[in-house]
Amino acid sequence: MTSTIASTAIHDLLEKQDTASVQAALAERHSADIVEMLADLDPERIVAVLKLLPDDRQGRVFGYFAPEQQVAMAKAMDRGTLVRFITAMSHDERADLYARLSPEQQQALLPGLAQAEREDIRKLASYSEGTCGAIMTSDYATLEPGLTTLQATEKLRREAPDKETIYEAYIIDAERRVVGRISLRDLLVARDEAEVGDVMRKDVHVVRAEEDRVEAAQKIARYDLIAIPVINGGDKLVGIITHDDAMDVEREEATIDMHKVGSVGEGIVSVRSAGIWLLYRMRFVWLVLLVFGNIFSGAGIAYFEDTIAAYVALVFFLPLLIDSGGNAGSQAATLMVRGLATGDVKMRDWGTMIGREVLVALLLGLSMAVAVSLIGVFRGGPEIAMVVSMSMVLIVIVGSTIGMSLPFVLQRLGWDPATASAPLVTSIADAAGVLIYFAIATTFLPMPG
Amino acid sequence: MTSTIASTAIHDLLEKQDTASVQAALAERHSADIVEMLADLDPERIVAVLKLLPDDRQGRVFGYFAPEQQVAMAKAMDRGTLVRFITAMSHDERADLYARLSPEQQQALLPGLAQAEREDIRKLASYSEGTCGAIMTSDYATLEPGLTTLQATEKLRREAPDKETIYEAYIIDAERRVVGRISLRDLLVARDEAEVGDVMRKDVHVVRAEEDRVEAAQKIARYDLIAIPVINGGDKLVGIITHDDAMDVEREEATIDMHKVGSVGEGIVSVRSAGIWLLYRMRFVWLVLLVFGNIFSGAGIAYFEDTIAAYVALVFFLPLLIDSGGNAGSQAATLMVRGLATGDVKMRDWGTMIGREVLVALLLGLSMAVAVSLIGVFRGGPEIAMVVSMSMVLIVIVGSTIGMSLPFVLQRLGWDPATASAPLVTSIADAAGVLIYFAIATTFLPMPG
Repeated sequence: MTSTIASTAIHDLLEKQDTASVQAALAERHSADIVEMLADLDPERIVAVLKLLPDDRQGRVFGYFAPEQQVAMAKAMDRGTLVRFITAMSHDERADLYARLSPEQQQALLPGLAQAEREDIRKLASYSEGTCGAIMTSDYATLEPGLTTLQATEKLRREAPDKETIYEAYIIDAERRVVGRISLRDLLVARDEAEVGDVMRKDVHVVRAEEDRVEAAQKIARYDLIAIPVINGGDKLVGIITHDDAMDVEREEATIDMHKVGSVGEGIVSVRSAGIWLLYRMRFVWLVLLVFGNIFSGAGIAYFEDTIAAYVALVFFLPLLIDSGGNAGSQAATLMVRGLATGDVKMRDWGTMIGREVLVALLLGLSMAVAVSLIGVFRGGPEIAMVVSMSMVLIVIVGSTIGMSLPFVLQRLGWDPATASAPLVTSIADAAGVLIYFAIATTFLPMPG
Repeated sequence: MTSTIASTAIHDLLEKQDTASVQAALAERHSADIVEMLADLDPERIVAVLKLLPDDRQGRVFGYFAPEQQVAMAKAMDRGTLVRFITAMSHDERADLYARLSPEQQQALLPGLAQAEREDIRKLASYSEGTCGAIMTSDYATLEPGLTTLQATEKLRREAPDKETIYEAYIIDAERRVVGRISLRDLLVARDEAEVGDVMRKDVHVVRAEEDRVEAAQKIARYDLIAIPVINGGDKLVGIITHDDAMDVEREEATIDMHKVGSVGEGIVSVRSAGIWLLYRMRFVWLVLLVFGNIFSGAGIAYFEDTIAAYVALVFFLPLLIDSGGNAGSQAATLMVRGLATGDVKMRDWGTMIGREVLVALLLGLSMAVAVSLIGVFRGGPEIAMVVSMSMVLIVIVGSTIGMSLPFVLQRLGWDPATASAPLVTSIADAAGVLIYFAIATTFLPMPG
């Protein structure tokens, strides 16, 4: 709420060209808040406001904008400003931006940078999206094992302004292989003359640059780390990923998984800033898959048309039965997708899980059968009630088992288990439901003629 | 994989009563890994293994077990051991455990603890679940503004072993109100004789103890914090929440939201360790709600029984049409639920969102109508195709609008928007779909007689 009011105030001040007040209003604010306040302005306008900030803050605030906004702003500024902003950004952010610029913009930018920075940006920007390499930063702190803890503390203190974090430092050998880690806390607590190599911890958790970024987030969460080192194919240290980036990964991946479970494609990170066309595409794919999935249910219905014509009351229960199967399946799929994503459930648990699932589904199916049989007697008489109840038990068990198993099957095939989203499970459970229901009806109800 | 193998090995070693090898196997492992290795053993057995660890590690490893397991283990140990474990746990973990013990266990435990610890535990355990107070810890570092940065660094160094973190310290006045914050990094970089009050940062983000824990996680994520201070009703500092706890909150809340969107109740944190009865209850509630929601669809179908009897081919398209409405609605609901949860979408965005949603739904409905009209002509002739296409457009728009709006309505009513889960949206969209479909059919198709 505060930032909305402040945002309106900023717009007013800009209208009045009262730059002194704009500067005063921005001076005490966190970069994240400034970004939110300015988000609705044109890129040109935002760049003009950023230039009102003290030199050392401009790049840092710029780094807080969403990557797409950074690109739009980059187009709206002269090369000198862009070079200045990029130089002040943290190493991972500037590599992200660089990777999103057009080849012409990239070529125009590089000559303005020092050679070391050019190489650093090129290297970081070369990792493909979704990997640890793509989110790591190269401004990490290293120590040699022979330093005393006093010397090491002094080194970290000197390097502090240029490093993403100095709270974890990594001890490397001559080949840049990580041989240990030490926290600033351990350094301070140790005797000043102790050697880093003697007091460092040797249980270093690492990730590989080409691994999925989720690996890094999971290890940081599991071991309560401030940062995790990233190594390349030759086991050399090439970067670190910090706890705040892990938190962003955790959040983005949860969003993507939730969208998939809710049958939305994986291209939407922010629903607020997503365009109509993107929203359309991400949703259309799944809805159309459902149309074709439903051809099977339709075929089932067509096959049993005589039964339906003889007992139109059966149609009354059709939505209820197929929805129950689909919903029980979605429930089971959701539990497994999230379990696999957080590491709570592993592939080897499939056997235990399916046993439990059948048991839970049997209980659910029986309870649902009791509920629906009451309506069945009232609406269609005892014979229909029996058919509906029997169908309900079977449909819930089949739907649940499909929903539970699909994420495991997809994971085994090397796909993302979250793709076992509602419409896929629903379509399969629907078709199974139609067949079960009308087959039981045809078997147990006397047919005219 | 590593830990499975190790786990089997540990079991073997325990069978052989080879305690020396067990100790060696555990010595190099992180607490989180030890917990995973021992998780399948009986509580008595786990306690016996923990006692093989060095004294200072026992409590820390114990703190890593899930709260329910801690309670089971607490029952399996004598009071002296429990006191020893609890004294070594971090303040937030031990308060969590205390809150879960039976009144008798609590009474038995207290006399064994020092008075300061008793009071600390009682105070922390008094906050209700889900609040910032319930996850905060009281072992934080404070500084007085008059200290030099050298003195402050010395103080943090001395207190390091007893504090959850020394990387952020909070500057408090005589009434324990937070007046500033300083990072260890800033302390190290500042001149030694500078005063803390002069170099501290005054833009301190805080949360209140009674606020939802999600607030703390969101602020830590937004401002890239190591920790956030927690204040009570009198604005006094009472605790801090650290980045690793924020990550756990983020993860648990995402799981709860995803379960709700997937129509599972909110009681399941780990599907692996959840019991059959809990799984049954959490799923049954929503499935039964669906049965009753479907009575409305059924009533709609009963009302149009004559139309159905005259055109049985209409039934062929029923699952397809109502599923399309329900799925489009679930998609829209999922996007909004996640957007509201991450703060991407705010209540004030409702107007913009509904305008966009109608546009996207119109495009989706038209595309789906084209797809389904082809099947319609083939299966039921041009008249049926027209009815089905018109119904599809309307049903997708109505379903999407309901799915999009429900999370906002629930939030406005003070409920959790994630409760607008699939079956609720599906049930409403189903009933609307049945009415739209058969009303259009009855209007446009010639009735016999």
